[in-house]
Amino acid sequence: MALETWLDLPEDTPFGVANLPYGVFSPRGGPPRAGVRVGNHVLDLAAALDDPVFARPSLNEFLATGRQRWTETRARLTGLLTDERERPRVEGALHPLAEVSLHLPVEVADYVDFYASEQHATNVGRIFRPDSEPLTPNWKHLPIGYHGRSGTVVASGTPVVRPSGQRKPPDADAPVFGPSRRLDIEAEVGFVVGTGSPLGSPVPVKDFAEHVFGVCLVNDWSARDLQAWEYVPLGPFLGKSFATSVSPWLVPLDALEHARVAPPPRDPEPLPYLADAGDWALDLALEVRLNGEVVSRPPFATMYWTAAQMLAHLTINGASTRTGDLYASGTVSGPERDQFGSLLELTWGGREPLTLADGVTRGFLEDGDEVTITATAPGPGGERIGFGEVTGRILPA
Amino acid sequence: MALETWLDLPEDTPFGVANLPYGVFSPRGGPPRAGVRVGNHVLDLAAALDDPVFARPSLNEFLATGRQRWTETRARLTGLLTDERERPRVEGALHPLAEVSLHLPVEVADYVDFYASEQHATNVGRIFRPDSEPLTPNWKHLPIGYHGRSGTVVASGTPVVRPSGQRKPPDADAPVFGPSRRLDIEAEVGFVVGTGSPLGSPVPVKDFAEHVFGVCLVNDWSARDLQAWEYVPLGPFLGKSFATSVSPWLVPLDALEHARVAPPPRDPEPLPYLADAGDWALDLALEVRLNGEVVSRPPFATMYWTAAQMLAHLTINGASTRTGDLYASGTVSGPERDQFGSLLELTWGGREPLTLADGVTRGFLEDGDEVTITATAPGPGGERIGFGEVTGRILPA
Repeated sequence: MALETWLDLPEDTPFGVANLPYGVFSPRGGPPRAGVRVGNHVLDLAAALDDPVFARPSLNEFLATGRQRWTETRARLTGLLTDERERPRVEGALHPLAEVSLHLPVEVADYVDFYASEQHATNVGRIFRPDSEPLTPNWKHLPIGYHGRSGTVVASGTPVVRPSGQRKPPDADAPVFGPSRRLDIEAEVGFVVGTGSPLGSPVPVKDFAEHVFGVCLVNDWSARDLQAWEYVPLGPFLGKSFATSVSPWLVPLDALEHARVAPPPRDPEPLPYLADAGDWALDLALEVRLNGEVVSRPPFATMYWTAAQMLAHLTINGASTRTGDLYASGTVSGPERDQFGSLLELTWGGREPLTLADGVTRGFLEDGDEVTITATAPGPGGERIGFGEVTGRILPA
Repeated sequence: MALETWLDLPEDTPFGVANLPYGVFSPRGGPPRAGVRVGNHVLDLAAALDDPVFARPSLNEFLATGRQRWTETRARLTGLLTDERERPRVEGALHPLAEVSLHLPVEVADYVDFYASEQHATNVGRIFRPDSEPLTPNWKHLPIGYHGRSGTVVASGTPVVRPSGQRKPPDADAPVFGPSRRLDIEAEVGFVVGTGSPLGSPVPVKDFAEHVFGVCLVNDWSARDLQAWEYVPLGPFLGKSFATSVSPWLVPLDALEHARVAPPPRDPEPLPYLADAGDWALDLALEVRLNGEVVSRPPFATMYWTAAQMLAHLTINGASTRTGDLYASGTVSGPERDQFGSLLELTWGGREPLTLADGVTRGFLEDGDEVTITATAPGPGGERIGFGEVTGRILPA
């Protein structure tokens, strides 16, 4: 059953009382502070809860308080929004979304990007290494990942300047320098660590929800031509590090109870430290729009590895984690062509351009293009849980 | 000419008035704060200079003040230490090194590791890919690098627990799990960014010294067996992320004027954005000791790419940098066998173990082993500029 609120929310809003995602906003003329989205309003948490932990320009301090406090805070908010006697207190702390600026919700500590979609990894293997097995021998034994640049994780809406760098045309003897010609998106889901873990203490799969606070959407912009030239043998670097955009709202794990589903079967069975403990696949329906037109609907439930397995793997060597660590799933691609989460795959390496409205075609991104990723998940009583959109427009080099 | 100080310094100390490296220390019972090493003492900067920017648990706030302030501060310190009238002020702020604890000098923002030694990259290629060209086609066109885990950059002296993880024995069908059997060191030189650069603004080679404050030593501990199994196609991850140790003292670039030398010839000529601007190769003589015995003397002057080129490359795609960014050179290996900066190379993949004192042999690191890296550089008037040691002992898994 969906909870009844006394607030007048838009019909079928995916930001109802069952969601309550956290972000950082500035009211007009005011400093950044924490808020929760309700319908098309933002609730100022420092004002509503009279707690200075929310009067900060990032959620980190609140996230560091831990699972028990997260759950208590959510219960208090639910109380405020369902008990009409709280109306005066709440109404004074609500800001129309249209009148605030939204920021990066957390100060990002380390950023890791995984590669956890079997369809995506298979597609990439087929496109780049057509004469080899598409999946590398390690792929089904561990969630492959690498560190990205946390300093260039940016808020949704931040323009993305086309990066320049080295690329080597196939028929050239030497690399050339210039703006990327194969600028791409990667539609991903991100997980933010609230409670860190000390050096030497792996986080078992079963402890996932003690450490991870919430979930956001990520667009891991990628310059395929820069990446192709640089990535052997140490992996992606400048092809990724120019910008990674994240959505403004962290949907707490507590809001995703109805989205939890069983992960797909794994063969071979993973090593014991990666064994599932509870269903932590998440039934998130992503949607990718290019200049307003839907070009893909990647289904997150099809991911081979869960976020709980990713965190267990990330820490199995004793690596510590910190409040604000962000790790992303890697590109989400489902089995159908219109479920692929990158232009690389949607256009099969640029060879089969997309045809958009008015007959416009796209291989990779052109200057002025705007990409927006959204998602929803099942909530209680048929309600939908919405994610804030992550969007960005390409500016010329 | 070396500067004359009124202080009674140990003869031939590499921590004379021409050095003045910055670190963070705690006096007995006191909170961490910034200091400068002079001989075998630490000068409390907040006390000596009466400036609260130094009463912090990291150097970040001072580093963010920029080149002009760095130079002024160095001049003030030189004044204090060469003008005997300052003796009362200085002596009250000096702590014997043996009576303080040393910490990580900076709060690390992003950590990047390069791969800039031609000899090292060639050795690794020969050991791992004996049937291919040892250097990948991109190697002489760009300084290859990747992001590491900044949250596991630790202070010198922090014990290193042997990491566990997946490795795949050559004759096995599937990976096995357990403690790494090929635990290694990488002797490297690290560079710390003081003045950051905004998104979209590459840092040209000529602006290196406006952004980089100082230099430290780095041991990028590596589990070769974990790394070998995981690193295709996205690069090193758990094989490196369990610990990266750094020396406690940042030697300012201003102390390394006499260490600047011409870089080696490059063929082919790099693209214009990587063209040298001033001699930024550095004549640092590294020394690697295993359980007290010198096993290698890597010469940093032989590196193919300079730190100025690394920063220019890191930012050429528009990536921003922040105060506290740390980037390391990659393993420093000279042309001679006893100049290699990793056990992988010193033992040629473990096949030719080192023989140490008393006939003890080592392929890779064993539990209880202690590795210490030190370095010196030429200073004025024949003086040596010393780096603080970076050391760590291996604890069992």
